[in-house]
Amino acid sequence: MTTAPEQLAANRSFGGWHRRFRHRSAVLGCDMVFAIYLPPQAEAGPVPVLYWLSGLTCTDENFMQKAGAQRLAAELGIAIVAPDTSPRGTGVPGDPDGAWDFGLGAGFYLDATEEPWRRHYRMYDYVVEELPALVEAHFPVSDARSISGHSMGGHGALVCALKNPGRYRAVSAFAPIANPSACPWGEKAFARYLGADRARWLEWDACALIAGATERLPLLVDQGEADGFLAEQLRPEALRAACTAAGHPLNLRLQPGYDHSYYFIASFIDDHLRHHAAALRG
Amino acid sequence: MTTAPEQLAANRSFGGWHRRFRHRSAVLGCDMVFAIYLPPQAEAGPVPVLYWLSGLTCTDENFMQKAGAQRLAAELGIAIVAPDTSPRGTGVPGDPDGAWDFGLGAGFYLDATEEPWRRHYRMYDYVVEELPALVEAHFPVSDARSISGHSMGGHGALVCALKNPGRYRAVSAFAPIANPSACPWGEKAFARYLGADRARWLEWDACALIAGATERLPLLVDQGEADGFLAEQLRPEALRAACTAAGHPLNLRLQPGYDHSYYFIASFIDDHLRHHAAALRG
Repeated sequence: MTTAPEQLAANRSFGGWHRRFRHRSAVLGCDMVFAIYLPPQAEAGPVPVLYWLSGLTCTDENFMQKAGAQRLAAELGIAIVAPDTSPRGTGVPGDPDGAWDFGLGAGFYLDATEEPWRRHYRMYDYVVEELPALVEAHFPVSDARSISGHSMGGHGALVCALKNPGRYRAVSAFAPIANPSACPWGEKAFARYLGADRARWLEWDACALIAGATERLPLLVDQGEADGFLAEQLRPEALRAACTAAGHPLNLRLQPGYDHSYYFIASFIDDHLRHHAAALRG
Repeated sequence: MTTAPEQLAANRSFGGWHRRFRHRSAVLGCDMVFAIYLPPQAEAGPVPVLYWLSGLTCTDENFMQKAGAQRLAAELGIAIVAPDTSPRGTGVPGDPDGAWDFGLGAGFYLDATEEPWRRHYRMYDYVVEELPALVEAHFPVSDARSISGHSMGGHGALVCALKNPGRYRAVSAFAPIANPSACPWGEKAFARYLGADRARWLEWDACALIAGATERLPLLVDQGEADGFLAEQLRPEALRAACTAAGHPLNLRLQPGYDHSYYFIASFIDDHLRHHAAALRG
């Protein structure tokens, strides 16, 4: 059973509130923590929500502490929800070798089909269904949703949007793992979560989903050119090729000198917030 | 001997660079790490510098990652230097009980006179003399300096400015330990670093220094009203009384609902940057 959110912390921020909550997730079969930024406008009535999906090793805290998003979110009147990046806690299995790129902190925003992962590793279902239902029931937010994320979370944002036409009004990504079925991080995770049949991986790969998308929501993607993961793991050129082939609108911005860190995200988060606000409030 | 800074990391940020360096500190007798944010304008010539002093337990990283200062610093053309909060490393003694409010991460920006602290715990000398000399010799910055900080670092900023007329063009603080000789954090630290004679503590206490200041540099101070340390440790009312008595200009802003965290700092850092920029560039 999904339980109501229990508040863990609250910090006033730019006239609004950063709040952290814990709740029981029925989908994931464990307690989960998420953060929400509520802008000042939420005191007067429901505001739209941007869902932010973080990358490998992160929790809800990285984005809220490091992206510097609250200033403009407060100005634009947008809430931001940041979930964790995997199920956690007693009974949730992690990487057998203790690696940081699989298991805990590395849920890859999919629904696992294989043992021992299928019981808990259902971050897609959690992010698309359970968490928004919880947030919309307990906070002053509307059902106007959009989604963004970084790295593994950029992959998650693209996949969630592409698989759910009409559910998100905007989507963007920072340095997404754009083609996970063809990079080492994705191959490791997908083989374990989804099994050996590579054909089944394609429903969790933005580059494969683009072709059959029934909604052509424009993609805003920022990618640092000095990102150490660019060539091997992120593969934005595959995303560009898929979008070109399908006629899917893509604004892929290659940013000279920028790396994979939150210094990169902070530098361009305002552009993404304005991209989302135009769709959420417009 | 002070050695030249050796770069540990570099991240492009808002068109400028966040860089971390290690160097040998002659003053502190250990290796020290600091961070510098260089705005885009630094590529064309020297820019003024804001020195940021962090609070208990922090390193150079907290401010650079969490305050969201780079966006406006890049616009205003100001460099920011963030030193560590104490000497560190082999041979540097810490709190005998392993507490977080004394010793490592808690240098209190003073020059210790007592054993075993006096050899290494000279953060005042480091921040006022050695570090600016190093920074001005190795980076495209001018000798236009200002200083700010948080909590223990707010105390440090006020003390450094009050003791050095003409050296800083502006000063500000977030939730400073305004009257350290009369609060538990300060009493613990000053008794150990400076000895039992409380009269000698007063040269490291902003409230005591205000009376004899020969330069009336206006103080901008933000203090959250929901700060859990407000009444016992921070004592802004003592600073207000000292400024009133001495005719020292003080803009003390009590911010309803804000706590002691970086969410508070981020919410008001832009006002402080503009305060510093007006003096540094004007």
